[in-house]
Amino acid sequence: MLHIVKIGGQIIDDSHLLSVALESFYALKGNKILIHGGGSAASRLSEKIGIQPKIIEGRRITDAQTLDIVVMTYAGLINKTLVAKLQAMGCNALGLSGADANLICATQRVSKVINYGCVGDLNENSVNKAALKELTNSDFIPVFCAITHDGKGTLLNTNADTVACTLAIALAEKEKVCLHYCFEKKGVLKNPKEENSYFKKIVFSEFQRLKQGKVISQGMIPKLQNAFEALNKGVYQVSIGHPTFLNHPKEKTILCL
Amino acid sequence: MLHIVKIGGQIIDDSHLLSVALESFYALKGNKILIHGGGSAASRLSEKIGIQPKIIEGRRITDAQTLDIVVMTYAGLINKTLVAKLQAMGCNALGLSGADANLICATQRVSKVINYGCVGDLNENSVNKAALKELTNSDFIPVFCAITHDGKGTLLNTNADTVACTLAIALAEKEKVCLHYCFEKKGVLKNPKEENSYFKKIVFSEFQRLKQGKVISQGMIPKLQNAFEALNKGVYQVSIGHPTFLNHPKEKTILCL
Repeated sequence: MLHIVKIGGQIIDDSHLLSVALESFYALKGNKILIHGGGSAASRLSEKIGIQPKIIEGRRITDAQTLDIVVMTYAGLINKTLVAKLQAMGCNALGLSGADANLICATQRVSKVINYGCVGDLNENSVNKAALKELTNSDFIPVFCAITHDGKGTLLNTNADTVACTLAIALAEKEKVCLHYCFEKKGVLKNPKEENSYFKKIVFSEFQRLKQGKVISQGMIPKLQNAFEALNKGVYQVSIGHPTFLNHPKEKTILCL
Repeated sequence: MLHIVKIGGQIIDDSHLLSVALESFYALKGNKILIHGGGSAASRLSEKIGIQPKIIEGRRITDAQTLDIVVMTYAGLINKTLVAKLQAMGCNALGLSGADANLICATQRVSKVINYGCVGDLNENSVNKAALKELTNSDFIPVFCAITHDGKGTLLNTNADTVACTLAIALAEKEKVCLHYCFEKKGVLKNPKEENSYFKKIVFSEFQRLKQGKVISQGMIPKLQNAFEALNKGVYQVSIGHPTFLNHPKEKTILCL
């Protein structure tokens, strides 16, 4: 069993939540990979140096200066802080971007409507499975930030949920993969004001109904779409929940086809 | 033969020099490891966010905010930029800090005179040779920044020359190691105003005379001291020179015991 765990920005910003997430990750049995976001930290650095972050439909417009900021924040500060904390627990973390060992090669997004700048999109051939296997065979625990590259010398800013999903699909060919999206809520909420109102299970047909009925919030839709795509492409299980319950089989939203 | 190449800040700041350095590194035959500095880029970021860099005797005072800045700059921006450029050349670079895979474990410097903050010192047990061997056996080319950790969750700012020297000594136990310090000059200059006045060779006794006679500049002394220490501890050859001549056997300053 391979666990692929994605932790979002709000977990990283909250030192207590982050400790919980890293301890839960450490306690997971079997092979595992951590992927982290960090958007709010990048926005804070951006504002500190006088560059107003531009985010359109949840995607950061990544001009040259913004690319430097996200690379510094994700691949530098957040990635190495998580690695040092995991190492202190005895977890043999190895921090990675997609450029390292050419692990994740992306394509720069081309849009006639919006110039996203250095934003990378992934496809089924993006993951260098052989190199990743070499690392995990040596008992290193990969800790990925969502910076990738185009193979021609340019770093690209990539969505961390998409990195997690793409890794899960690529590695599901040869292994049973569980993909976990961890965030500050207990799962996908039926009522956003009610923390305990999370779905225990969402099947695909229900997701489509919930989406049409606007029961699911705007921000959750791409995460769930990613998740169902992963299940469709062979990932064994996808869950969405709080890091406290990462190791619990039920206290989270489980997605099923 | 294992080549350990350190490139300094002025090379990193000059895009032409950097290309020359990376091409020369790429062309080196045999196993190789790159170590980079980046102090001037860290100082620029520091000033952008309104923190005046404090450097005493060539060592950056690394309080909590400055640690974030150096981690972002060295482990993030510079490290990943170099990795992406090397990957584009076909060199299978893997960017690393000392925290990754617990590769370099340092001790936080304690001084009664100056509070250096999160500055790390290295000793003969700092390098995790087994983990480094796993990586190089898998044909990854390590690219180290000079961020290390204390194994207890704290990242530490470490001198890049010292990282290079410590790696060279640790790996010389089992391999023939050449340590190359690359910078913007052709070698150690006899006359700082005369670019071609570099020593072809400096033996240890001569170094001591030159130091006493103040022929060697202040900044060069710790680099040479590091170099002679490496030779004393089993490193096969140490050279100081311009990246253009990295592969040339003579166009540089060669240090000998």
